[in-house]
Amino acid sequence: MDIRELIRAKTSGEELAPEAIDFFVRSLVDGTCTDEQLGALLMAFYFQGLTAPEIRVLTERLAYSGRTLGGRKSGIPRLDKHSTGGVGDKVSLVLAPMVAACGAQVPMISARGLLHTGGTLDKLESIPGFKVNLQCGELEQILERTGLFIAGATDEFAPAEKRLYAARDATETVDSIPLITASILSKKLAEDLDALVLDVKVGSGAFMPDQRSALALARRMVTTASALGLKAVALVTSMDEPLGRAVGNALEVREALEFLKGGGTQDLKALVFSLASELLVQGGLAAEVSQAREVLERVLSQGKALEKFRAMVEAQGGDPRVVEDPSLLPRAPVVLRARADQDGYVTAIQAKEVGMTVVDLGAGRRRWTDPVDPACGVVLLKKVGESVEKGEPFFEVHARTEAAAGAAQARLMEAIQLNFEGITHERWVLDRVEGGL
Amino acid sequence: MDIRELIRAKTSGEELAPEAIDFFVRSLVDGTCTDEQLGALLMAFYFQGLTAPEIRVLTERLAYSGRTLGGRKSGIPRLDKHSTGGVGDKVSLVLAPMVAACGAQVPMISARGLLHTGGTLDKLESIPGFKVNLQCGELEQILERTGLFIAGATDEFAPAEKRLYAARDATETVDSIPLITASILSKKLAEDLDALVLDVKVGSGAFMPDQRSALALARRMVTTASALGLKAVALVTSMDEPLGRAVGNALEVREALEFLKGGGTQDLKALVFSLASELLVQGGLAAEVSQAREVLERVLSQGKALEKFRAMVEAQGGDPRVVEDPSLLPRAPVVLRARADQDGYVTAIQAKEVGMTVVDLGAGRRRWTDPVDPACGVVLLKKVGESVEKGEPFFEVHARTEAAAGAAQARLMEAIQLNFEGITHERWVLDRVEGGL
Repeated sequence: MDIRELIRAKTSGEELAPEAIDFFVRSLVDGTCTDEQLGALLMAFYFQGLTAPEIRVLTERLAYSGRTLGGRKSGIPRLDKHSTGGVGDKVSLVLAPMVAACGAQVPMISARGLLHTGGTLDKLESIPGFKVNLQCGELEQILERTGLFIAGATDEFAPAEKRLYAARDATETVDSIPLITASILSKKLAEDLDALVLDVKVGSGAFMPDQRSALALARRMVTTASALGLKAVALVTSMDEPLGRAVGNALEVREALEFLKGGGTQDLKALVFSLASELLVQGGLAAEVSQAREVLERVLSQGKALEKFRAMVEAQGGDPRVVEDPSLLPRAPVVLRARADQDGYVTAIQAKEVGMTVVDLGAGRRRWTDPVDPACGVVLLKKVGESVEKGEPFFEVHARTEAAAGAAQARLMEAIQLNFEGITHERWVLDRVEGGL
Repeated sequence: MDIRELIRAKTSGEELAPEAIDFFVRSLVDGTCTDEQLGALLMAFYFQGLTAPEIRVLTERLAYSGRTLGGRKSGIPRLDKHSTGGVGDKVSLVLAPMVAACGAQVPMISARGLLHTGGTLDKLESIPGFKVNLQCGELEQILERTGLFIAGATDEFAPAEKRLYAARDATETVDSIPLITASILSKKLAEDLDALVLDVKVGSGAFMPDQRSALALARRMVTTASALGLKAVALVTSMDEPLGRAVGNALEVREALEFLKGGGTQDLKALVFSLASELLVQGGLAAEVSQAREVLERVLSQGKALEKFRAMVEAQGGDPRVVEDPSLLPRAPVVLRARADQDGYVTAIQAKEVGMTVVDLGAGRRRWTDPVDPACGVVLLKKVGESVEKGEPFFEVHARTEAAAGAAQARLMEAIQLNFEGITHERWVLDRVEGGL
């Protein structure tokens, strides 16, 4: 077999046999597939698509191209969540400790942010000392000891997927449902999970522009996961305004801590409880969603979720004092409180525009190699549906300089819509897709 | 600008602006375009195609990505021929000296063979000492002195095209009319020609499977050349049986020498005269085709074309004695004369099968890195339309071993069709496409 044959088969519309996909994935690891062939094949996948069997086999072979995560404890379900990425999305920061506090193992391999969508690893790194680059053995030890971690991918897990992912990024072939599916699920399969919940975001601040494609991705991921023996539920959720109030690394960690102490906005609560309760039910830690919600309320009110967060921070080398004293997190030198120039109701907050404003404050990336500022960002004092009086502060900009803060303020005044009549934002979960094993 | 933007534009169906193509070609030379991006972009070109303006700009930028050939002499037209490749195609070996003998410069940058299609460079290298890898300065000197050369591409001409070509080969994106056009014409433009004749072959032994796609390629090449100020005529010609009698490197050189001494089969004569007379007319060396044919007959009968061949062999380091004594060419240890097992007429000779038989005798390549045997090959003693008696030799196999010769014989018995009723093969030139400047 030869990569050129594979390319020829794919361009002429043939379905690739499992052996061919197997060869391709091995050739990614051993280097037989050259960079130019990989680029060409990705583009052929992009144009021709992949059939359900092709996606299934590709996902499986990518998943097992390296080692899988050990550290299992008998009788303890291993659960994880994956989000397609949004603005102000700090769900992982609170969901992982909550679900771990309910008795599951949560081995969360997460990612960094790009463009308007933030990254969980960048957020956690704003905690002084917090390490996200850990070796497989360390991750297993932490998981056994504390029940959770949130860390970056290592070269030991799904190495073929790593090469594929970098090439997709360089060749603008990221936007392909089959490739997204294979990429996400292969990493999750390498975690050796019992169940997975997927947060597929749709809206102005999301990767998926419309509900139809979001639903297609959700279905593809759930059916592929099921076919590979992994229980999965996907929720299609709204990402039109940023999630919660804070957008920016340390600011979001602070908001997550407030959430774990009983605070949190309505949208963040709705999403965290919906996703986490699905996981508890799938993992057998609750009989049904209503019971799962009660269990989750309890671990919050009893401080057990906060305790898990502290344990994670400690285990990953971070300063655990931030949990009680968030003022130890990095703080920006300039904090500008923008005041409303009229009375009214917030009727829209353009998530993508807020996200890009935060990127330009230095807290996000345009390219993978850009550094990220831990302290800067935006806090939305008023969310969609809330009223504001003329002269009342309605958002904060945390910036390095007065000039940067001023520029961000001007952009945000445009991105936040005020109207005389209010609206109520009711639905955050737009759709639900469940797989059958 | 950034290659990723280009990929995005192309995948979403936009026409690339000249500046974008300019950037792409420069990025091929300076390495800004990574191999994986090149592979992806080639595949995007393959699926989306290129518009006429895109092809024109790409061809031009590739052509001038390096230096162009000097060595001009005032008042002397510079002419060349390009063929899309076939089996037994020794036209270049005789056309270049004939046209040079008529008073033109013929700077022929040629190629090696792959699979069933032979390569002019491989054929010439069967002449002891003949060098096809010459530097630009040497080529210019030889051209000024002798009026012709046949040599390989150097890194100095169209370096961007070189990288593109290698990547097309590795990524199975060779089969694209826009890319073929840009590739062929850019190399020819770098030769600084006055006129070009294109031999677009169609049939079982050709790259183009059917006349429709051959005609489409011919039209695209001629209109692109015209748009770039290069006079061009394309002939669509038949490649169902091998051209002439010999298939194999030294065997074809020997047949070329016989041709230059007044011999030659009907099909080879028809093709050489058609292509060469087009060139003479385009180059102003003859007023019309009938006059061009007379001039060509004259340089053959007066031995001037043979003299040019000898001058080329000498200038390129080859042993000029082969011209008078072809037995100095490498000879295979085993020569098997296959005899007909029935009376009949040859009604078909499967060119591709003959070509692949010759590859398996060692005289051609399956991969670019394979070595090529100069001596082996096949001689068709009977061409389509000729009659054969039972027991009469009708082809020869020149091989390294008896076993190889036997295997080739068995294959050729299948590839050559004998029938009770004869056919006449009348038309070798199927179509003609002329450009207007």
